[in-house]
Amino acid sequence: MTPDTAVHAVRSIDATLTVRRPDGSPCADTEVLVEQTRHEFAFGNIGFDFVGLANQEQGAGRENVFGGADPAAAGRLEELFLDVFNTATLPFYWAGFEPAEGRPDTARLQAAARWFRDRGVAVKGHPLVWHTLAPDWLREHTDAEVEEIVRARVRREVSSFAGLVDTWDAINEVVIMPVFSNEERQNAITRLCRRIGRIPTIRLAFEEAHGTDPATTLVLNDFNLGTAYECLIEGVLEAGVQVDAIGLQSHMHQGYWGEERTQEVCDRFARYGLPLHWTETTLVAGDLMPAEIVDLNDHQVDEWPSTPAGEQRQAEDVVRHYRTLLAHPAVQAVTYWGITDQGAWLGAPAGLVRADGTPKPAYDALRGLVKEEWWLAPTRLRTDGEGRVAVRGWAGDYAVSAAGGTASWQLRADAPTAVVTLP
Amino acid sequence: MTPDTAVHAVRSIDATLTVRRPDGSPCADTEVLVEQTRHEFAFGNIGFDFVGLANQEQGAGRENVFGGADPAAAGRLEELFLDVFNTATLPFYWAGFEPAEGRPDTARLQAAARWFRDRGVAVKGHPLVWHTLAPDWLREHTDAEVEEIVRARVRREVSSFAGLVDTWDAINEVVIMPVFSNEERQNAITRLCRRIGRIPTIRLAFEEAHGTDPATTLVLNDFNLGTAYECLIEGVLEAGVQVDAIGLQSHMHQGYWGEERTQEVCDRFARYGLPLHWTETTLVAGDLMPAEIVDLNDHQVDEWPSTPAGEQRQAEDVVRHYRTLLAHPAVQAVTYWGITDQGAWLGAPAGLVRADGTPKPAYDALRGLVKEEWWLAPTRLRTDGEGRVAVRGWAGDYAVSAAGGTASWQLRADAPTAVVTLP
Repeated sequence: MTPDTAVHAVRSIDATLTVRRPDGSPCADTEVLVEQTRHEFAFGNIGFDFVGLANQEQGAGRENVFGGADPAAAGRLEELFLDVFNTATLPFYWAGFEPAEGRPDTARLQAAARWFRDRGVAVKGHPLVWHTLAPDWLREHTDAEVEEIVRARVRREVSSFAGLVDTWDAINEVVIMPVFSNEERQNAITRLCRRIGRIPTIRLAFEEAHGTDPATTLVLNDFNLGTAYECLIEGVLEAGVQVDAIGLQSHMHQGYWGEERTQEVCDRFARYGLPLHWTETTLVAGDLMPAEIVDLNDHQVDEWPSTPAGEQRQAEDVVRHYRTLLAHPAVQAVTYWGITDQGAWLGAPAGLVRADGTPKPAYDALRGLVKEEWWLAPTRLRTDGEGRVAVRGWAGDYAVSAAGGTASWQLRADAPTAVVTLP
Repeated sequence: MTPDTAVHAVRSIDATLTVRRPDGSPCADTEVLVEQTRHEFAFGNIGFDFVGLANQEQGAGRENVFGGADPAAAGRLEELFLDVFNTATLPFYWAGFEPAEGRPDTARLQAAARWFRDRGVAVKGHPLVWHTLAPDWLREHTDAEVEEIVRARVRREVSSFAGLVDTWDAINEVVIMPVFSNEERQNAITRLCRRIGRIPTIRLAFEEAHGTDPATTLVLNDFNLGTAYECLIEGVLEAGVQVDAIGLQSHMHQGYWGEERTQEVCDRFARYGLPLHWTETTLVAGDLMPAEIVDLNDHQVDEWPSTPAGEQRQAEDVVRHYRTLLAHPAVQAVTYWGITDQGAWLGAPAGLVRADGTPKPAYDALRGLVKEEWWLAPTRLRTDGEGRVAVRGWAGDYAVSAAGGTASWQLRADAPTAVVTLP
């Protein structure tokens, strides 16, 4: 099976659609136009660069650890983002979101979330609990206070963004959390996790978040994709914590992993019967980071340019990676980590768009998959005597037009037989 | 603090002993002789080599994966073993213990356990559940049968050895168990663990063993000493499985780890409040295994001699390692993995005794610690007017002699004030 047919074998649905006239009678022997309008599969990217634009800010983008095009540049990126991605990850890094205790950046992030939703993009919040970028002020609190403040933070964010944010990374990188030592002064989240243990810390995040908004999708997210994460997940599930999806990071600054390793990771984590979200995918379009770097944050370079050869490799790697992931039935979401090189994490040329706003080959290649190869372009079909057409397409939203009217249809794997009534 | 004083600071107990005459009156102003007869701390070694001797077998030792001096050679080793070690690990590798289904080697191992106990040596069984050396015949059973057969095996061994074996490695190497792939045909234990999960597999072993003999000490044992094992332990404890001790392997065929790493491992695993058993310690007295070998079993060499330089290094490493471990209050047992080079695992010169039966410098060095530096030699003290003497010693058994009689006294950290009555 070629990669293409493997992806289609997993994702394509053979549907039978009955088209009815406004009066309920079958729209028989009629030409209908079926066209896809949205993927159900979450093709995500970070939306960090658009926070300023959504808030009509001027001038340089506000400081942000990961990504941060200025609002004018973001304006030029908007169309490129919206053409490919249907999901945006927004930054809730605590140190940046609430630099002074009690003064969270809620309104600004709400505006950003609304901006995306108005454009048909689902929003994911990242992350509710994480040791890195924990606020300095949290350290000054006692153990008991820290736990209560973390609980309150989870409740506050989930509550403030109910209806705006569908999915949260409830907690990030717990495998290393209690033994994290790459910092001068130990942060308060590591202290908490070390004191109460990994699973109680995870339970805290999930229980507070689900308790506040039972409808939200909560992801356990990690960069560790080895047996440690497996053991953690097994412990969390045994402990009865309701995990909605397993988050797998894949920052490949040190080079593409290849199909075999990626497939092996999918297989190992699919064993838990939960959807897999590839939450943070990076493939650089320049020099690779040396393999001996363990914490990617330790790699500091003055300049890390996007190069023609690097861009070509990135485009090929992006296609190979997405084909591998989409061919695995457990994978439900893939978020690329960077729309533009401007302000990219570590200065890496990881964006799909150059700092000057022009798309790289990887952007075009990914668009080719998402909006062409894996997308049902407007297709003319003829209904049979009972008003039925056979449609082979991916789960998602479709427009069905006939006899001067257009109806919307949601194609789902669990409902391959459906009826639409024209308006 | 020097390593010596660190060890003594952790292990020495300042005790006050009141010596009474047979009539109960204080044995005042009398010279008493106090001498240690046994350590409470478990100084262990494998007892594999003595199974044939204990069973009066003749000729070549029966095939054994780990260790296997012939009975005659074992006879010459007996005194060396008993002079230093108070705990012996006996092999219950399932494939060897029950090569044909339903025909376990119970009587032979019972004789070996009894042989050790008769000589004052506590016996540990290794291991009840492990994917490596699972019997081939187990593979032919269905999933449901495998689980029931494993449960029955645990019950059978714990029951058959109650009163002979105090401590079991209840389950071995679970971190890798469900993803173990270094074999041509998948063994049935990996299949079981993959199907039901790591924690249910651990629960199975512990519950059956504790259910059969509540008094037995059950160890969770692994060679993985990283975050994966931490996550596994946290999950197991959250799940309410009663783990009595955390087992840490340390086969250092690739070189001594050094004090810092060893201390760091102790600190990380001591966080769970459970005793630490260093269950499998190896330091070779010859060439080191290349660092790139991941599964030590993959290293096959025709000859791996014990060399004078290697023996010198081994002696130094043994002393450094034991000093580091004994200085950590959570460590309750250290088992060295090999008394003799004869039949040693992987052919490695890991023994404390050469294949020709002569002790290596490491043997003498370890004996110097266990029976001299850390041991209370016969000491003459004078009781005060109330029959009291102050004794500074390690937890263990002591003989107290005065006025023509000898009493035994067990010095424990939780009972530093004690009374003995002379016979």
